[in-house]
Amino acid sequence: MFLENIYLNNFKNYSEVSLTFSEGINSLVGKNGSGKTNLLDAIYYLCFTKSAFNAIDIQNIRHEQPYFAIRGRMKKHEHDYAVSCSLKTGHKKRLKLNNKDLDRASELIGLFPAVLIAPNDGSIITEGSEMRRKFFDGMMCQLSRTYLQNLVHYNHTLKQRNTLLKLLAENSNPDADLLDTYDVQMIVKGTQIYHHRKNFIEKFTHLLNKHYDFISSEKEHVSCKYKSDLDQNEFKLLLRESRNRDVSLQRTSRGIHRDDVIFEIDNYALKKFGSQGQQKSFLIALKLAQFDIMEQDTNTKPILMLDDIFDKLDDDRIGKLLKLIDDHFFGQVFITDARPERTMQFLNRVESPKKIFEIEDGFVIRERSYES
Amino acid sequence: MFLENIYLNNFKNYSEVSLTFSEGINSLVGKNGSGKTNLLDAIYYLCFTKSAFNAIDIQNIRHEQPYFAIRGRMKKHEHDYAVSCSLKTGHKKRLKLNNKDLDRASELIGLFPAVLIAPNDGSIITEGSEMRRKFFDGMMCQLSRTYLQNLVHYNHTLKQRNTLLKLLAENSNPDADLLDTYDVQMIVKGTQIYHHRKNFIEKFTHLLNKHYDFISSEKEHVSCKYKSDLDQNEFKLLLRESRNRDVSLQRTSRGIHRDDVIFEIDNYALKKFGSQGQQKSFLIALKLAQFDIMEQDTNTKPILMLDDIFDKLDDDRIGKLLKLIDDHFFGQVFITDARPERTMQFLNRVESPKKIFEIEDGFVIRERSYES
Repeated sequence: MFLENIYLNNFKNYSEVSLTFSEGINSLVGKNGSGKTNLLDAIYYLCFTKSAFNAIDIQNIRHEQPYFAIRGRMKKHEHDYAVSCSLKTGHKKRLKLNNKDLDRASELIGLFPAVLIAPNDGSIITEGSEMRRKFFDGMMCQLSRTYLQNLVHYNHTLKQRNTLLKLLAENSNPDADLLDTYDVQMIVKGTQIYHHRKNFIEKFTHLLNKHYDFISSEKEHVSCKYKSDLDQNEFKLLLRESRNRDVSLQRTSRGIHRDDVIFEIDNYALKKFGSQGQQKSFLIALKLAQFDIMEQDTNTKPILMLDDIFDKLDDDRIGKLLKLIDDHFFGQVFITDARPERTMQFLNRVESPKKIFEIEDGFVIRERSYES
Repeated sequence: MFLENIYLNNFKNYSEVSLTFSEGINSLVGKNGSGKTNLLDAIYYLCFTKSAFNAIDIQNIRHEQPYFAIRGRMKKHEHDYAVSCSLKTGHKKRLKLNNKDLDRASELIGLFPAVLIAPNDGSIITEGSEMRRKFFDGMMCQLSRTYLQNLVHYNHTLKQRNTLLKLLAENSNPDADLLDTYDVQMIVKGTQIYHHRKNFIEKFTHLLNKHYDFISSEKEHVSCKYKSDLDQNEFKLLLRESRNRDVSLQRTSRGIHRDDVIFEIDNYALKKFGSQGQQKSFLIALKLAQFDIMEQDTNTKPILMLDDIFDKLDDDRIGKLLKLIDDHFFGQVFITDARPERTMQFLNRVESPKKIFEIEDGFVIRERSYES
C-alpha cells in the first residue's frame, strides 16, 4: 500500500500544495517551522481521520481561513482509493472515500494502516500507566472488534459504578444492589480483557525483543511485562475485598483499568535507568513491533512516518534502521529532518527509490527523484 | 567560574573516573547509553546538590554498589573551591565545601551557578501551568531570599486553608473565623508575590525576545505574558467572592497559585502552533535569558550544560548558537552528542579552547585537547 499523491488546502501552514510521492522513501527536509511535520500530519489525517498532534480539528485550519481540505490517492492491493478529509468552521468534519460521504470515522480507520514514530511518543515510556494502556489498547482495538466492544462496555460500567460509589459515600440512599449488578458486568468483561491483554502482550514482547536486539546489536536487553491486579487474584474476590474501601474512596480501586506494562532494560526500570538514546531505541522497537503486528493482521505493509527520529541515535543504530528500510522490511516511508546534508548522507547509502522534498514556509520549493 | 576537574566513584554507570576539563568547551561524545548525560548530571549535583533527572538520590548509585561519591574543584573569581557530594545507602546525603561538612543544601546552592538545557525541558512549554510556575519560581527563589520566604509562607497558608475548607464542607464544626486569618495572610504574601512576578517576567521577556530574535534571525517573534487572577481584581475581593464556591470545592480556587505564563509565537499559542524546532528554539532562548539574568545577579558566568541540543535545530540556528559560544557570551560549556563527526564538524568552526572526551560504557576511552 502507498500514498500516490496528496493535495492540501489551508491545512496548518500550507495554503495550497499538491505532491506526488515515491513508493519508496520520501524525505521532507526544511528549516525549523517550515512545515515538515505538518505534511506528515496531513497523511496521518487521511489514515486516522484526525491529527496526531492537535486533537482540536479546527486549530488545524490555516490561520484566518474558513476551512481546510486534504485529499489523497492511495494504492492498495492493486486498487485505487480516493480519500479526503475536510473541515469548515462551524460544520462537522467531512470524510469521503471514492467520492462517497462517510457517516462515521470508523468506516475509514484501519483501511489504510499507518505507523508514526514521533518525538512526543517518548511519553509512552516516561509518563504514567495511562499512556501505556492507551498505546496497547489503541493497537488491540484496531485489530479486534471484540476487544474494542469489551473495553467500551467495561469503561461504561466502571463510570456508572463510580457514580454509584459517590452516592453511597454521601448517603444519598441509592440502590445498593445495583453495585452487585455492575460488579458482575465488570467481572465478565474485565476478565476477558485481562486474558486478551495477557496473550497480546506476550506475542508483542517477542517482536519487541527481536527489534530492540537488532537496533542495539544486542548491546543491552529489554523486556516488557504485563502487570495487573488480576495476576494474583480473581476479579470477583478483588471487588468484594475492596468494596468498603471503594465506597470511602468513591472510586473503584482494583481492576484492569489500573493495569500497567512494565518496560525494563537489563532488568532495571527503563524510565529511570535507560539513557535518552536507549529510550529512543526502545520507542522505535516498540513501533516496529506495532508495524509487524499490523502487517501480519492486515496483510499490508503500513505507511511508516518517521518524524525527526535520527536525533539522539548513534551512527550504529541509524545504520541498522536504514538497513531495515533498504531490505524492504517497510513499504512506503516518510522521513522528516531539519538538516538536509545529514539526510542526503544517509539516503546515499540506501538503494530504494526515493524522493526528496525541500520545504520552506509551507511551500515545496524543490523536488528531486532518485530511482534505483 | 569553571569546573577544573571532577572525580566520580560508583555514580550511575561510572565505576571510577577522574577528568580534567577545559575552561572553554568540553564535548562529551559516545554511543547511546555510554554515559554522556550521566556525566552532566554529576556536574549538576555539584552545583545543585541533586540530580537533574532522578529525584531519588539512591537510584543514582551504581547498580549493586553501596555508595556514590562526586568530587570537583571549582575556580571562581580567582579562588579555588573543593566541593563534594556523596551518598551511602541508609545514610543522609553528605555535602562538603573545602573539606567542611555542610548542614544544609542551601549553603551550597547558588554558589556555583549553572544552567542546563536538556531535552526533557520541553515540558515547560508543552505541559500545564505548574511546570512554568516551577521554572520561574526556581529562578526567582535563587535570586531573591524575600521571594523564597514569601512563597514558602503563602504555600503553607494555602495548605492550611484547604484543610480548613475540607472540614467546613464536612460540617465538622471547625473554627470558621480561622478562614479570615488565613485570608489576610494569603492576601499580604500573595500580593507581594504577584508584583514580584510581574516585574521579573517583564524584565525576563526582554531578554527572551533578544535571544529568540537572534537564534531565529527574526524569522518569527515570540512573547511571554504573565497571567494571574490578580490582574483584574484585588486578591481580597477575589477570596471574598469565591468563598462559598471554595467551601463546596474544598480548595482555594483563586490566587497566585493558579498563575500562568503564556508563551506565544507570532501571536498564537506556542504549545499548539509552534513546530518542534520552534519550540526547541524557544526553550533555548528561555534558558539563555536565564543565563543572562543569573550572570547579572551573581556577577559570574554560570556553567552551561547543553544536553543533546543540536537535535531538531536547523543549521542556521546551530550556527547562531555556536557564534554565541565563540563570542565568549558563555564561560565554560559542556556539550553532549551521540554523533562524534557532527560535533567535530561544529567545533571546527569554533575558535575557543576545547576538549573532546570519548565515552564508552562508563569509561573515558580517549581525550583530546585543542587550544586556540
